[in-house]
Amino acid sequence: MEPFVHVGKRIPKADAVNKVTGRAQYIQDLSLPGMLYGKILFSKYAHARIVYIDTSRAEKLLGVRAVVTAQNTPEIRFGFYKDNLALKGGKVRSYRDEVAAVAAVDPDVAAEAVRLIRVEYEPLPGVFDPFEAMEEGAPLVHEEHKGNVLKLPWRFVAGDPDSAREQSAHVVEDRYEVTWVTHCCMGTSGCVAVLDVRNNLILYSTTQIPHLAVRDFNNALVKMGINNPKTRIIKTTIGGAFGSKLDTHPFEYIAVLLAHRTHKPVKIVFDRTEEFFATPGRQPAVIDIAQGCDTEGRLTFRDVRMVLDNGAYTSWGATTPSVMMMPVSSLYKVANVRYSAKCVYTNNIYCQAMRGYGNPQATFAIESQIDHLAEVAGMDAYEFRVLNANEPGETTPQEFKITTCGLCDCLDAVARNLNWSTKRGKGDMRRGVGMASLIHVGGGARVYKSDGCGTIIKMDDYGKIDLFTGATDIGQGSETVIAQVVAEELGLFIEDINVIDYDTDVCPWDVGVHASRTTFVACNSALGAARKIKAQILEMASRILATDPSDLVISRRVVSSKSHPDQAIKIDKLLRDAHYSLSGRMLMAEYFYDPQNENLNKEFKGNLSMTYSYGAHGIEVEVDTATGKVRILDYVAAHDVGRAINPMLLEGQVQGGALMGVGYALTERLILDKGEVMNPNFRDYKILTAADAVRVKPIIVETQDSDGPFGAKGIGEPGCVPSAPALANAIYDAVGVRIRDLPITPEKVLRALKGRTQKDTPGPEPT
Amino acid sequence: MEPFVHVGKRIPKADAVNKVTGRAQYIQDLSLPGMLYGKILFSKYAHARIVYIDTSRAEKLLGVRAVVTAQNTPEIRFGFYKDNLALKGGKVRSYRDEVAAVAAVDPDVAAEAVRLIRVEYEPLPGVFDPFEAMEEGAPLVHEEHKGNVLKLPWRFVAGDPDSAREQSAHVVEDRYEVTWVTHCCMGTSGCVAVLDVRNNLILYSTTQIPHLAVRDFNNALVKMGINNPKTRIIKTTIGGAFGSKLDTHPFEYIAVLLAHRTHKPVKIVFDRTEEFFATPGRQPAVIDIAQGCDTEGRLTFRDVRMVLDNGAYTSWGATTPSVMMMPVSSLYKVANVRYSAKCVYTNNIYCQAMRGYGNPQATFAIESQIDHLAEVAGMDAYEFRVLNANEPGETTPQEFKITTCGLCDCLDAVARNLNWSTKRGKGDMRRGVGMASLIHVGGGARVYKSDGCGTIIKMDDYGKIDLFTGATDIGQGSETVIAQVVAEELGLFIEDINVIDYDTDVCPWDVGVHASRTTFVACNSALGAARKIKAQILEMASRILATDPSDLVISRRVVSSKSHPDQAIKIDKLLRDAHYSLSGRMLMAEYFYDPQNENLNKEFKGNLSMTYSYGAHGIEVEVDTATGKVRILDYVAAHDVGRAINPMLLEGQVQGGALMGVGYALTERLILDKGEVMNPNFRDYKILTAADAVRVKPIIVETQDSDGPFGAKGIGEPGCVPSAPALANAIYDAVGVRIRDLPITPEKVLRALKGRTQKDTPGPEPT
Repeated sequence: MEPFVHVGKRIPKADAVNKVTGRAQYIQDLSLPGMLYGKILFSKYAHARIVYIDTSRAEKLLGVRAVVTAQNTPEIRFGFYKDNLALKGGKVRSYRDEVAAVAAVDPDVAAEAVRLIRVEYEPLPGVFDPFEAMEEGAPLVHEEHKGNVLKLPWRFVAGDPDSAREQSAHVVEDRYEVTWVTHCCMGTSGCVAVLDVRNNLILYSTTQIPHLAVRDFNNALVKMGINNPKTRIIKTTIGGAFGSKLDTHPFEYIAVLLAHRTHKPVKIVFDRTEEFFATPGRQPAVIDIAQGCDTEGRLTFRDVRMVLDNGAYTSWGATTPSVMMMPVSSLYKVANVRYSAKCVYTNNIYCQAMRGYGNPQATFAIESQIDHLAEVAGMDAYEFRVLNANEPGETTPQEFKITTCGLCDCLDAVARNLNWSTKRGKGDMRRGVGMASLIHVGGGARVYKSDGCGTIIKMDDYGKIDLFTGATDIGQGSETVIAQVVAEELGLFIEDINVIDYDTDVCPWDVGVHASRTTFVACNSALGAARKIKAQILEMASRILATDPSDLVISRRVVSSKSHPDQAIKIDKLLRDAHYSLSGRMLMAEYFYDPQNENLNKEFKGNLSMTYSYGAHGIEVEVDTATGKVRILDYVAAHDVGRAINPMLLEGQVQGGALMGVGYALTERLILDKGEVMNPNFRDYKILTAADAVRVKPIIVETQDSDGPFGAKGIGEPGCVPSAPALANAIYDAVGVRIRDLPITPEKVLRALKGRTQKDTPGPEPT
Repeated sequence: MEPFVHVGKRIPKADAVNKVTGRAQYIQDLSLPGMLYGKILFSKYAHARIVYIDTSRAEKLLGVRAVVTAQNTPEIRFGFYKDNLALKGGKVRSYRDEVAAVAAVDPDVAAEAVRLIRVEYEPLPGVFDPFEAMEEGAPLVHEEHKGNVLKLPWRFVAGDPDSAREQSAHVVEDRYEVTWVTHCCMGTSGCVAVLDVRNNLILYSTTQIPHLAVRDFNNALVKMGINNPKTRIIKTTIGGAFGSKLDTHPFEYIAVLLAHRTHKPVKIVFDRTEEFFATPGRQPAVIDIAQGCDTEGRLTFRDVRMVLDNGAYTSWGATTPSVMMMPVSSLYKVANVRYSAKCVYTNNIYCQAMRGYGNPQATFAIESQIDHLAEVAGMDAYEFRVLNANEPGETTPQEFKITTCGLCDCLDAVARNLNWSTKRGKGDMRRGVGMASLIHVGGGARVYKSDGCGTIIKMDDYGKIDLFTGATDIGQGSETVIAQVVAEELGLFIEDINVIDYDTDVCPWDVGVHASRTTFVACNSALGAARKIKAQILEMASRILATDPSDLVISRRVVSSKSHPDQAIKIDKLLRDAHYSLSGRMLMAEYFYDPQNENLNKEFKGNLSMTYSYGAHGIEVEVDTATGKVRILDYVAAHDVGRAINPMLLEGQVQGGALMGVGYALTERLILDKGEVMNPNFRDYKILTAADAVRVKPIIVETQDSDGPFGAKGIGEPGCVPSAPALANAIYDAVGVRIRDLPITPEKVLRALKGRTQKDTPGPEPT
């Protein structure tokens, strides 16, 4: 391996000290002169006609500056299906529907004003189950649509799954279910909207998609009658995102409407209750899956049908079936695949992107069932996986081109670290081990028309760099890894690289933080610009040192000759010499990196990503058969990451992801009662706390991807993908019950243990 | 002339609406979380030894967070001669010496704490006149120097002035005097200093030299023990500058010291009194000048000696003799020139840059005396000037290469507009006319090692541009003219161009706003980047429209074919097509423009600027012989500006400059009594008010400079240069008295009228 100075080093996050010393400025900390506070009135019903809204008492309250409703504001539509509205008129379709909003001089006045708004509703029958919603005569969530099933295109076929099924030696078929969970960001959602004198929008925001948000808000401004507007997004420090900020949200449009109405900055920040019920979370799904293998255990087909509860509106982040298709089509070598998904409107809360974007849901079903199939086929689950594992050079049914692939290495590492061969299948002491694999995009994902990221670099007289990147740091550490690769490429120190990533006026375009793409795409972009700078430095130094640029190397802020190491010049001196001469120059460079990956075609085929990440998690559990409680004894998480730019941050991603996966598997559930969130708080919504945290052992498998920056692939999401099936498989290994609906609560385990008549249990009971 | 869309148009300033609606954020408006307020204790004496400083009572005051003196802080030296200190230890050398400073939770506590600091001084004899300071045995301002005369290099000789004098037909010799005036910015000085967790400095500032300030503050941070620091300057809206922000100042370093001590943001803002006595102004000078001509009136020689009162410290902006040399050597064709200047330490306040940077002082002497010489030679002053006027193609004694030159046109325009031929020399009705010319740098000025300015442009999917420039808008309108030339070059609308100029982390290097260089240098830089963008647009469009790039033109956001005008594509569509394709691209470009002008050599020769601006002002006055009061009846200001990018802003510069020149000529004077400023307020310091304002008729002479952006030259300073001599000349024409020391108060005129025994009066009396 090359002797890297910064790449591969455990360098603390650039913003770590700011965060632990309280210097980081979150949206909550932001205050602007003359700023007003906005507050939203949400619906009292899951489904109702709005008869009238009386805002007169609110308007009369001292300190209230504006009250907006659908009646007195332009209609702003947004979302993937353009079925969502900033303020709902006519009828409400869920408890989280925004009916009115106020702006007032302080938060208390705003809250009081909201209480003074009187809305008369005419309740309508609601529909809260996607299967019921599909029935003839079910209440329509959107009357303008003929039915509740969304006309969405996700449907994929490769090979001939029906024939393959007939010819399989072993076939299993099961139903799996996953329910609502939410991101639980420690920083609740919020924004401050300002309209400048030209009615251009400045939105202080925590968005993950600053440049796509510019497009969304520009469209909204046009709807508000502002001609040829310009939106500027300024990012504050983000207190967690995990996909929750991958959409634009009603509260943001409402802040813009209030700012436009009042000519003042307007701040809206959610309290924790609002964060729970009005921040869309992960989509529930009912997954019917069948898989088969031949006599040797080779997978022959995979057939998956899903029904997803879409809730009342369709966010961009609700397009998870497009990503669920990835593991369905491409986890393990399986030639015959069928996938279809129905998204169904209900009067429940709607959902959006969440870490993994459908992958954890799909992988729970696939990988739980792989154990089932291996058992039916009489094979060890680890060996079954190795036999079917993806390999470099493979093209998957969805036409993903697998370049590097460390899946077998990950499986081996997990088996070795868990002592799989001695522990698996023993079932003694109510202990068991389980594993699950994953595939994820690791080299961008062309889900939008561009998957690009721009970088601009300028260098000062002292050898310091200001780097403007399209990438957004949502806590994952992109500022740090970008600084590492640029410092590495240019022979500088980490502290020489100042990464600027918070202002769309300054930062070049990027499609957003999703698909675990930032390290891959933003670092490649940064390297492109850095190489332009490097070429200039070497060319200037070659003239001074009278040697060829190829003979030069930069290290520790010094350019020196490889052949005559005593021939050297400090970078800062070189820069000043170049600057302080007749017709001087200063080094600047720009680079736009758009990977050569493909949008999926109409058959949903195409090389979506430049490379793919793999991983396997292995877990040892102990199940208390008296209570059904599951205790995790050991957790091994092996990931093929291409190369670890920063092992410390990478392990943080894996550990954080795995714990999120454990919460998804065992404890987390947003409980809805006829559309109403019943547990919008941390007392009743069971996120893992520090006391519950499990020690996760990350194992880094490096495959050196030739397209990745210094060989790296993305690793932001994979950590949370295989936890649930690995746990379900371990529980089955321990006590012989298979739980197919999440979360795997003690009650479910206990019920299964009590009702067990055979080694495998039937599908989940209806909720 | 080409049919320009934006260039040459009267477009309002970009920030105009923000300013008149109170939205502009001045340094006074800035508040940061946890911010403290700093206050400075100034000296009680003009010259004294500091025996001790007792800060204990101040430190005990509730709310005080730090008290700093020279004793408890590192020594920070700065200024041209490194003779200035952030906090003065050992002794004070002027009343404005900073002895101590406090940081407290609010301004009142800070003020109270300053009052509680006890300083015991041992007064020393002071020296307040440069001639006395040069005498043997005069008190030394800086003991470490042998004498009070600064060892500064300004001395220039061309040809043989002594022989030329002997051979002249006519010779005049006079003494002129100018005194202290100050900038009178409506926004007082201030800054907020913040040190981040790495002890890098963020300084919210109103500086005119952000990048040079970075260098200064980096040096200070190193002195404070901070290794390899980085300074970031963030500019707030500037409420006037006029050169006053061309230095770094003690109060800024003190804010940094207090921020470092307290780990909090520290704000220091001057009140109006402090602004008057602690903001260095224009340097006083005693100017001995002799000029001669031949029998035909051609200038034969010019010999100028100056003594400047340097005050106690030497700022960068106190290097005015270097610029005074320009009109001395190069206004009119004169082959034999000698110039020397002595800068002398005194215990007066020190001075710095102010609009024109020495040129108004020198031109007052030269152009007053030109009238005197013309009279002696028996020639009309206008015809004398035309005869000697500079011409295109000329190389001046200082080796300035005159490319375009509209001086004769300006003189003609003034004579015509004033009805010179009918009014001059009549002396009836106590009315008279006078004129004066000017030369100034108009194409940058290589006074630092670089005269460069960088630009970065990025373009979004909607055809809008973000442009980062090194230029700083101090109210002169650079944001607007940059937008104009870029919109012109790229066929866009003005509102498509967003100019970002307030952050050294974002904006490329620029040497600063001085020498009337910004329009010339920054617009050339912006055009360089815009042309790179344009080339990309045309290349992309040529492929789509299947024609050669040279056949394409961009206008009103549309690229179209010249030969087939129906073949066209909108820029936003073109950009999106390029972006949303496989391996998409987004347009970005960077450009660093450093003019090919020269640093002056050791003999002070070299082509300092790419081009030179010329102008002539003509004034008609009426003198009240009973009171000595001068009334301006007519004011014509003709300027060779190359091309007027924005006539409205340009006229604003000329009008504002001329009014500043009138104040300098007639009313303004900072009165010092043994080093103490006696009139630090707008009641006693007589700036022109709206009621006093004279209607100035600007006449724009366009010479289309081939090096200028669209032909433009700089015009920021020239407007204030010739007012004083034009007025003095008009007064002489009206009532036959010549006042040779500024300001020309009614008292001086009356005294001269009463004492008049001959047509010309003797030199000024000692003050």
